[in-house]
Amino acid sequence: MKLTTEDETQRESRNEHRADSPAPPFGKSMELFRRAAEVIPCGIYGHQSPAAALPGASPYYAERASGSRYWDVDGREYIDFMCGYGPIVLGYGHPEVEEAAARQRKDGDTMNHPSARMVELAERLVDMVDFSAWCVFGKNGGDMTSWAIRVAREQTRKKKILRVAGAYHGIDPWCSHTPGGLIEEDRSQIHTFKWNDLESFNQLIRRHVGKVAGVVVTPFHHPSFGDCEMPDNDFLQVIERTCHDEGIVLILDDIRAGFRLHLGGSHRVFGIKPDIICFSKALGNGYPISAALGSKELRVPASRVFLTGSFWNSAAPMAASLKTLEILERDDVPAKLNALGLRLKDGLVALGEKYGRPIVASGPPATPFYRFADETNFRDWQQFCAIAMEGRNGLAAFFHPHHNWFLSATHSEKDIDQALEIADQAFVTMNELPR
Amino acid sequence: MKLTTEDETQRESRNEHRADSPAPPFGKSMELFRRAAEVIPCGIYGHQSPAAALPGASPYYAERASGSRYWDVDGREYIDFMCGYGPIVLGYGHPEVEEAAARQRKDGDTMNHPSARMVELAERLVDMVDFSAWCVFGKNGGDMTSWAIRVAREQTRKKKILRVAGAYHGIDPWCSHTPGGLIEEDRSQIHTFKWNDLESFNQLIRRHVGKVAGVVVTPFHHPSFGDCEMPDNDFLQVIERTCHDEGIVLILDDIRAGFRLHLGGSHRVFGIKPDIICFSKALGNGYPISAALGSKELRVPASRVFLTGSFWNSAAPMAASLKTLEILERDDVPAKLNALGLRLKDGLVALGEKYGRPIVASGPPATPFYRFADETNFRDWQQFCAIAMEGRNGLAAFFHPHHNWFLSATHSEKDIDQALEIADQAFVTMNELPR
Repeated sequence: MKLTTEDETQRESRNEHRADSPAPPFGKSMELFRRAAEVIPCGIYGHQSPAAALPGASPYYAERASGSRYWDVDGREYIDFMCGYGPIVLGYGHPEVEEAAARQRKDGDTMNHPSARMVELAERLVDMVDFSAWCVFGKNGGDMTSWAIRVAREQTRKKKILRVAGAYHGIDPWCSHTPGGLIEEDRSQIHTFKWNDLESFNQLIRRHVGKVAGVVVTPFHHPSFGDCEMPDNDFLQVIERTCHDEGIVLILDDIRAGFRLHLGGSHRVFGIKPDIICFSKALGNGYPISAALGSKELRVPASRVFLTGSFWNSAAPMAASLKTLEILERDDVPAKLNALGLRLKDGLVALGEKYGRPIVASGPPATPFYRFADETNFRDWQQFCAIAMEGRNGLAAFFHPHHNWFLSATHSEKDIDQALEIADQAFVTMNELPR
Repeated sequence: MKLTTEDETQRESRNEHRADSPAPPFGKSMELFRRAAEVIPCGIYGHQSPAAALPGASPYYAERASGSRYWDVDGREYIDFMCGYGPIVLGYGHPEVEEAAARQRKDGDTMNHPSARMVELAERLVDMVDFSAWCVFGKNGGDMTSWAIRVAREQTRKKKILRVAGAYHGIDPWCSHTPGGLIEEDRSQIHTFKWNDLESFNQLIRRHVGKVAGVVVTPFHHPSFGDCEMPDNDFLQVIERTCHDEGIVLILDDIRAGFRLHLGGSHRVFGIKPDIICFSKALGNGYPISAALGSKELRVPASRVFLTGSFWNSAAPMAASLKTLEILERDDVPAKLNALGLRLKDGLVALGEKYGRPIVASGPPATPFYRFADETNFRDWQQFCAIAMEGRNGLAAFFHPHHNWFLSATHSEKDIDQALEIADQAFVTMNELPR
């Protein structure tokens, strides 16, 4: 579902009704943003753009972060539910990860060759991911998804790539969400089908029979500005079987959810085997790294599609990643995130019932998407999140109104309960406002 | 000039002649490589692939690096002349840069928003680069060159991009050096002209009149496996004038050379003004960061071409970059690199004369390319570099046979003189071998 957002005029108009409530004290954020607007297109662009969150009603700049807490440049403290938009799976500044990265950095990070960490990390990941025989590394999720479609084309000597409409796989022309700078050739061999709509998938397969190189899917659908959607019945299974039967390479983009649902790749939760899986975000607990793993049948084409970057073999993010994976396994983090996520979900849903504004929870509890059930334009949900971001007694909750949230292993039950208290108070505040 | 390399059989055959010389002790490198070959396509891929250097006669894996020195996993120490393929402009593990990055990391690195460092760094870069009005950031050079061609297309609403044959701008399909995984649509709007050949440029401009969005050039031509070529007479000037007259966006890829020749961008050395300049490598002294800066006319199209990545706003590499730029300016590093580079060049050229094997030096002294004058297949030059990598008395010089070298500000005159002693001895050793 694609939901719509209010425009700024609507929000300003609503804020005027709240003359009793002081303006959110984002003065330093605004001052930095004014400076940024002079020297950076849009001031802040991309996924952290204020336009994608709560313009004027949430911070724009980060000061510091630690564990499950985040502070903006105006000194406001938040119980965090974004984890840096996903990378922070163990908590900000996790001491063991920082220590492993620091030790490696003392030896060397970007050098003339890879370090042994690259081999160790590839070995560890190939061990963890059931179908995989090899691993390569990049710095960003999109580095891997874009490379993976080329591997599919190299393997099959076919051109077409099928993907799900509205799914995010990066900024490259084949998948970018906005048309700026694109030419028709960028997408003439890219075709989209609808999530959970096998008929739309089968139609593409029939229409382009013998021409499809690869199919790219996420393990569940996680659009911005819309509910997460888990795969129906045999949706992923039919795609998997079709790819197998037709010699099409199945690419799983597990960048958003990877290591939060299952340490062996999110396909394990849904009972399929892709041919390539792409990871990033949680892989290094905030250190920049991404990886693609593939089946042994794809080893030769993988070796024929050029892949490199100035910092892509750097050792410190790989050392951080090795330690992150060790802790994820040692502490069974996916189970912990699921339990914490259920506590948060149950609490929020109960609060929605209590105040007569039912909340829709979608997606896995560890990476949930929330909104009010009775609206699709996020108008009140934005207000609810903005009030939670104002918080009370100096403590606020970072509730993103349009993007799935993320939990980390350092979140405690107390963090969840405090956030629920903030949410409870937000309902009270919201109900006191003129409608 | 595109030069050719010997194959491994030839080198093995030559090594057999050197029974008096022990095999290079790269045992740990080879053991890691055997493990890597199991789980990584090609073992090591990309620019650090052994196949691109001296397979069997140089290290494959890094253990540590400090200042101007580099150690492989077998414990061999090298006076380094690659600087991590460019990023290390101040020396490995530069204490002030490391301290700045560590301080930022203690506060936070990857967070929910950019930090003030992003604004400060954009302000600083826009101040440094004469024609620029704005700045954006990525993690890798190719992130910026690929985004820049989309900005050119967005600005002009035209499709075609002209680039120099053999120039490296990244791994993306429009510019990748190898055909693996590419389809014809990837390059149907990309056309190449020859470096220093204005007629080939003008032909493209005439043939595609009214259809060209952008022209991408490096400040000087720096192919692998070939001499660097400085721009002739008015080569870049004519391109600049043509772009200006035809409304074409001129993109300078300064990723390789940036901040080593001129702190305001390498175009300052050559007397042109591009519309966009792309930096990476030296920008963060090893921390992963890249940047593109552009003219005020391109601010709106720049804001319309989507750009983001999970770690692209992370604060620590930006803090490292701010400190790197401060030191580059404070210590007038380009002048220092030029002086050191001239000392190295003069010494190597003199040794070539002394031993009757003249050496061709090409490119700026800070990023030089060397080979023997009397061969174009690198056969003897590979041997010379391999002997320098074996070194003597436990100290070797990291001489890359097929890629331009890089100097750093931490290199001392003594480092250069020691490397020249190693080179002198390499000539003696080489002359003792059967030809």
